[in-house]
Amino acid sequence: MSAAPATGPADTALRARAQKVIPNGMYGHQSVGMLPAAAPQFFAEAKGAYLWDVDGKRFVDFMCGYGPNLLGYRHEEIDAAYIDQLRKIDAATGPSACMVELAEAFCGQVGHADWALFCKNGTDATTMALMTARAHQGKRKVLMAQGAYHGASTWCTPAPAGTTPEDRAHFIHYTYNDVASLEAAAAEAGDDLAGIFASPFKHDVFVDQELPDPAYAEAARRICDTKDALLIVDDIRAGFRMARDCSWQAIGVAPDLSSWGKAIANGHPLSCLLGSERARAGAEQLYVTGSFWFAAAAMAASLKTLEIIRTSDYLETTIALGDALRQGLAEVGRTHNVGIRQTGPSQMPLIMFDGEEGQVDYGLGEAFCNGMLQRGVYFHPFHNMFISAAMTQGDIQYTVETADAVLSDLRG
Amino acid sequence: MSAAPATGPADTALRARAQKVIPNGMYGHQSVGMLPAAAPQFFAEAKGAYLWDVDGKRFVDFMCGYGPNLLGYRHEEIDAAYIDQLRKIDAATGPSACMVELAEAFCGQVGHADWALFCKNGTDATTMALMTARAHQGKRKVLMAQGAYHGASTWCTPAPAGTTPEDRAHFIHYTYNDVASLEAAAAEAGDDLAGIFASPFKHDVFVDQELPDPAYAEAARRICDTKDALLIVDDIRAGFRMARDCSWQAIGVAPDLSSWGKAIANGHPLSCLLGSERARAGAEQLYVTGSFWFAAAAMAASLKTLEIIRTSDYLETTIALGDALRQGLAEVGRTHNVGIRQTGPSQMPLIMFDGEEGQVDYGLGEAFCNGMLQRGVYFHPFHNMFISAAMTQGDIQYTVETADAVLSDLRG
Repeated sequence: MSAAPATGPADTALRARAQKVIPNGMYGHQSVGMLPAAAPQFFAEAKGAYLWDVDGKRFVDFMCGYGPNLLGYRHEEIDAAYIDQLRKIDAATGPSACMVELAEAFCGQVGHADWALFCKNGTDATTMALMTARAHQGKRKVLMAQGAYHGASTWCTPAPAGTTPEDRAHFIHYTYNDVASLEAAAAEAGDDLAGIFASPFKHDVFVDQELPDPAYAEAARRICDTKDALLIVDDIRAGFRMARDCSWQAIGVAPDLSSWGKAIANGHPLSCLLGSERARAGAEQLYVTGSFWFAAAAMAASLKTLEIIRTSDYLETTIALGDALRQGLAEVGRTHNVGIRQTGPSQMPLIMFDGEEGQVDYGLGEAFCNGMLQRGVYFHPFHNMFISAAMTQGDIQYTVETADAVLSDLRG
Repeated sequence: MSAAPATGPADTALRARAQKVIPNGMYGHQSVGMLPAAAPQFFAEAKGAYLWDVDGKRFVDFMCGYGPNLLGYRHEEIDAAYIDQLRKIDAATGPSACMVELAEAFCGQVGHADWALFCKNGTDATTMALMTARAHQGKRKVLMAQGAYHGASTWCTPAPAGTTPEDRAHFIHYTYNDVASLEAAAAEAGDDLAGIFASPFKHDVFVDQELPDPAYAEAARRICDTKDALLIVDDIRAGFRMARDCSWQAIGVAPDLSSWGKAIANGHPLSCLLGSERARAGAEQLYVTGSFWFAAAAMAASLKTLEIIRTSDYLETTIALGDALRQGLAEVGRTHNVGIRQTGPSQMPLIMFDGEEGQVDYGLGEAFCNGMLQRGVYFHPFHNMFISAAMTQGDIQYTVETADAVLSDLRG
């Protein structure tokens, strides 16, 4: 038996070359180091809901680029908007009119937003949120949920390597959805509370997702009001997948700041921080910038994306597709007498398996995803997935049938 | 008299709209808040060496997007490479073959480089350099030159707003080109020295530029060798403008890490950290990532940019153009009996004016740049500028003649 990965020869050859010129052969969230052996590392083509790896194998892609693919890969109108703008001006000595148009569009789209700062990475947006909260009243303490992901810079990367304890000197952790825990953290901050970070729902890796308890969201809002701190909803991963507004619109809680990225230009590189009037003075004190933050092409693509978000039924489509997947997989689980844990919003599903005594069976999850990948469905064993509006009910049906076949093999 | 800026009505109208939806109306290095009144905030088109503002006024652009425009705006081959790749796959669930090809190309191009980590902002690359240096041996202290710019995140932004003292708890500052100062900083770090940041030359704002003293560069290398720390050359602004290799190649000092951005894809959004074999183990410990870091289109553009860097005379062209500008402006200065301070490499010129007692006359610099801008030459009064390979000797001649006319007006 060979120890080579169960992907094709082109993928295997590229991995060997990558080992020489890229640390660990790949890094960050797109390294397949922790994924099932059938997950290819390198891809050659993307279109709509599908990916093709470098060996020509097709996948129905439930990762959607880890979020950016909301309306389908290589969306014709959005890519045309990008290319049309590129043929006028992109990164230059100053921004273009579309930066103002896009800021106006976001303020029209997102209820709490009165201004926008555009940037490139999700981490840029969360870093500016952190800085704005601290600049707001010159206070230091920031609360965030234990285990939540808010980026990968020195202050937020999940791994300690290369960071110092001082990078997080003024952070206090609470338990998501736990009002008492949040209140205790706020009490610990005393009169030095600058802000509270909240994911729109709990979407940590390796654990079941949790929708937000309105009491928790309302407590966060109340604490920020009482202590003149800023409430930050980190909507980078979930933005425009829960609502055509900030994800907490559904529970009626408006943050002061929200961070956005991933899908806002349907895959073109753009992120932003949105803020309320109350947060503007803090933001105006910052010196924040980036070489490509003012580039016009990704902004033109985002303007087109927002237009489609406003005028199409993409949201209802992804929810219907997600519901059909959830229902189909639940039936498959019953058929095979396997406990499938499906958590979070159906359009951002996390799918894991029951183990003994309430635990997650990660081994079964890996074997299941391996089987799905081998049959052309890109499933992830421990990270939430994403439904694209380019998927069809046929894709969902194929996925459910494939899950049935994989579980038949595994349990047969 | 109106207090409105001396730019056109379209620019003025956009500024008014921007004030409502963007903090301060604009932010970061592309805000014109500190620039002469004739500097437009918004642009509509770019091509080659030229920019057109939203009122249709043309500028010979000596800012080159603050660096990205190395080979000319809207370079046909490079933009075609971007668009061709966009029509296959860009941001997706995994990277494409061109990521490996580009890492190989950088390792072939830059002498000290054995691996590459790609990212989006210059700040991403310097942040990963900081983290790699600390991960290398688990040490904490990092030296950097007083006044040097290495990005705009919490640990490096030039403005304190939104940061805490702990964000820079383990930084020790030295004076650029001052060996004794560097050695004193290293002594202060004791046995806890993780790394030394160095700009390839001193290119701080508001002060004359300084080319690197080889004794300083060699001292930095020697200290890092003695203390098992990593030497970082921050080549984001100057990369490929001084050499077809790391900028310190000319003085024979190889760093362990170099950070790159700006021009490496001629304006498409890409940056990277390059490292030597010695630095690889540190980099392999990090968790660093970004939503769009693995996207293929900017990498395809960078591959084409590197090919042109290898095969064209762009470097000799920009140096010859810069030399001609420097010589022409020096003659203009003599004609008008004005002391023009022209510092740094001629292809990255900083142009300021002598004031009294060796000081800089910033008022004259502002008036001069205002006149240049009014006549269609985009000059910056206190930031280094950039020569693009798309400029011609005719552009330089026009610029020198314009400077002569402006100084005639100012001194007449």
